[in-house]
Amino acid sequence: MRVETVAIGNEIIEGRTIDTNGAFLGRELTERGYRVSRHTVLSDEPEALFQGLKEALSRSTLVVATGGLGPTVDDLTKNVSLRLFRTALQMDSNLYDEMRERLGDLPSLQEQSRVPKNAIVLRNQIGTAPGFLFLSTEGSLMLLPGVPREMEQIFRDEASQLLSEHFPVVAKEQTVCLYLCQLSELELDPILREIQSAHPDAKIGIYPSLGSLQVQFAVSRDFDRLDQWAERIRKIFPTHLFDGPAIHEAIQRALISRGQTLALAESCTGGALCSRLVSMPNASKYLLGSVVAYSNEWKEHFLSVKHETLEEQGAVSVETAREMVEGLFQHTKADFAIAITGIAGPIGGTEENPVGTIFIAIGERGGTIDAGKIMAPPHRTSAIEFALQYALGALWRRLAYQTLTFI
Amino acid sequence: MRVETVAIGNEIIEGRTIDTNGAFLGRELTERGYRVSRHTVLSDEPEALFQGLKEALSRSTLVVATGGLGPTVDDLTKNVSLRLFRTALQMDSNLYDEMRERLGDLPSLQEQSRVPKNAIVLRNQIGTAPGFLFLSTEGSLMLLPGVPREMEQIFRDEASQLLSEHFPVVAKEQTVCLYLCQLSELELDPILREIQSAHPDAKIGIYPSLGSLQVQFAVSRDFDRLDQWAERIRKIFPTHLFDGPAIHEAIQRALISRGQTLALAESCTGGALCSRLVSMPNASKYLLGSVVAYSNEWKEHFLSVKHETLEEQGAVSVETAREMVEGLFQHTKADFAIAITGIAGPIGGTEENPVGTIFIAIGERGGTIDAGKIMAPPHRTSAIEFALQYALGALWRRLAYQTLTFI
Repeated sequence: MRVETVAIGNEIIEGRTIDTNGAFLGRELTERGYRVSRHTVLSDEPEALFQGLKEALSRSTLVVATGGLGPTVDDLTKNVSLRLFRTALQMDSNLYDEMRERLGDLPSLQEQSRVPKNAIVLRNQIGTAPGFLFLSTEGSLMLLPGVPREMEQIFRDEASQLLSEHFPVVAKEQTVCLYLCQLSELELDPILREIQSAHPDAKIGIYPSLGSLQVQFAVSRDFDRLDQWAERIRKIFPTHLFDGPAIHEAIQRALISRGQTLALAESCTGGALCSRLVSMPNASKYLLGSVVAYSNEWKEHFLSVKHETLEEQGAVSVETAREMVEGLFQHTKADFAIAITGIAGPIGGTEENPVGTIFIAIGERGGTIDAGKIMAPPHRTSAIEFALQYALGALWRRLAYQTLTFI
Repeated sequence: MRVETVAIGNEIIEGRTIDTNGAFLGRELTERGYRVSRHTVLSDEPEALFQGLKEALSRSTLVVATGGLGPTVDDLTKNVSLRLFRTALQMDSNLYDEMRERLGDLPSLQEQSRVPKNAIVLRNQIGTAPGFLFLSTEGSLMLLPGVPREMEQIFRDEASQLLSEHFPVVAKEQTVCLYLCQLSELELDPILREIQSAHPDAKIGIYPSLGSLQVQFAVSRDFDRLDQWAERIRKIFPTHLFDGPAIHEAIQRALISRGQTLALAESCTGGALCSRLVSMPNASKYLLGSVVAYSNEWKEHFLSVKHETLEEQGAVSVETAREMVEGLFQHTKADFAIAITGIAGPIGGTEENPVGTIFIAIGERGGTIDAGKIMAPPHRTSAIEFALQYALGALWRRLAYQTLTFI
């Protein structure tokens, strides 16, 4: 069964909005065993939208599209779907009453309650744009609104059930996914190439993101090979594996299960490390907070970094990173502490410390402080992401394998 | 001239990686006057890749594609392009020498220096994957690597120049873009509908993101209408406009030009507000830092929030938000201070303060503290984004228009 996804909107094509809906749908559909073969972003222009959807439907059993269902002037998807499925709108008075009860007397409710005659309506519990499912042997179309949280709610509460009813997954290939931190793609690639040449039927993917790697094996027969390959990688890199996809999730699980807490002191990452950890629900169960001491005065005042250290070694130095960790232990009750200080650029680099120079220190209360220098890509957002991923990798390997990175 | 963009990789289709390259290319091409008509994400499967690129080329004058040019096992784009343009690889020894000088003796250099015979090579100054431009009257193809920072460097340093040489922009429609904060899309929509019905030839887009709006008008004749429409919106919402696209950029410009500084105290946003500000180069010129006091103890210790306030009013209260701002003025030299405390969920909501309840306080040293409650969407990442956008909107309107939000 061929499944394609579509995102609709000039704001996506022109890059004003990053297409997170495509990623959400890709992930959710893949997890449910569907093979997504293509994702297309179409403009708000009615003819281009009609053509693009028509082509996708002709190639696929099911197309899941997001966007253009709202009440504003550039929302055209509902009308285009009427042409595609040769139908018209009709008032759904239940839907109208339900929205009125939930949202009050909004001017857009009348229009938003008019639904295509031959579509199944998917209830939106947050906004005013319902989703629709058109079933057809010549390609079925599911339309979902473009606002991510509305789309996600409808997908999970309504669409998912309809998919398994109308599009049951029959044969499914098996996959195994491994996640590794503090490892480069080139260290892993030779092993994957060996496996690939011995098993040409296997699908092998390696997905590096700054500071961590994801490896995926997929086969449609002889499934026990998957375990053998995973075991092989586990043996070669025993202290780099983590329970993915997100390393901060693995860290959260480890610290909560031990009843331990974490405090952060950030300079160049500017709160991005803390923000990443806080993106997970329940972060408050182990995370005390972060002192984002972007200025030297803050490093002294809030973290008791010595004035002499800042003067003599500089704010970007291993000594300052160490003292930031010591300051966290002094000012808070944290069991673990991470400090990051560096130069994310584009300005501020020196001959000694060019842009991308980052110092990281990680300590356990009463234990050693592991501290050292890394070189991140000399590009502001990449440097920040690389530094925080590296710090998380170092903390994870210390927690899970008692591996110190720098000492 | 029709231009399409393509991103290649199973990790994008399956949602493990968010497609930021598509957004980058869309933005850059649009800014240069190209009209991007479609963006497609294709899988790493050779036949699907071949077909998808072939279709895109048959529809377009130019296709710009990213991904699959690396040295690892799942990088297939270069080989597929050989089939599309009926050519073969040849060794580029200048490229090889250049990479060896820059990167040392990496095992992948030999393979990465083999380039398609009839393509223009685009130098990668960061990694090992060069880009390629195949020129053809039946559709030209530009291939760029998938690693965002490498792709962006090649695009800016090499591709951009080649585009204007080989694909000069002839006629170009004019556009005007307005950015508004602390305003809902429904407040603006009636005005846009009026304009649209009086001027059916105008392209009007409204792009809400959590807490701010972008409005775009485009016409291909009678360009002075653009100014009239902009002026009309300016008159109706005089204190909501900011110099977009990013409100934190507008705030940074304002504070640096006044020589004033900003300090933050964050609870539920967990560093996301500070991290957003730090994403801009030069943030250190006005931003002192953020105390991310995720725990009550930190609010007392670092921000001198009174124990009684936390006990009696709770950490999520307007009083705590005010005291966090007062604490920042006491502990730091900041001219402006923002505090955010709230419940991002999914847990922690109460009857009085359900998930999505956020208190924001904004103060100027020696001036009033503007503080109050907002209701954010009850969804963790949306609540965090909404809260920080709202706080930035409130700070901007205070800086630019002396408008207080809550008082």
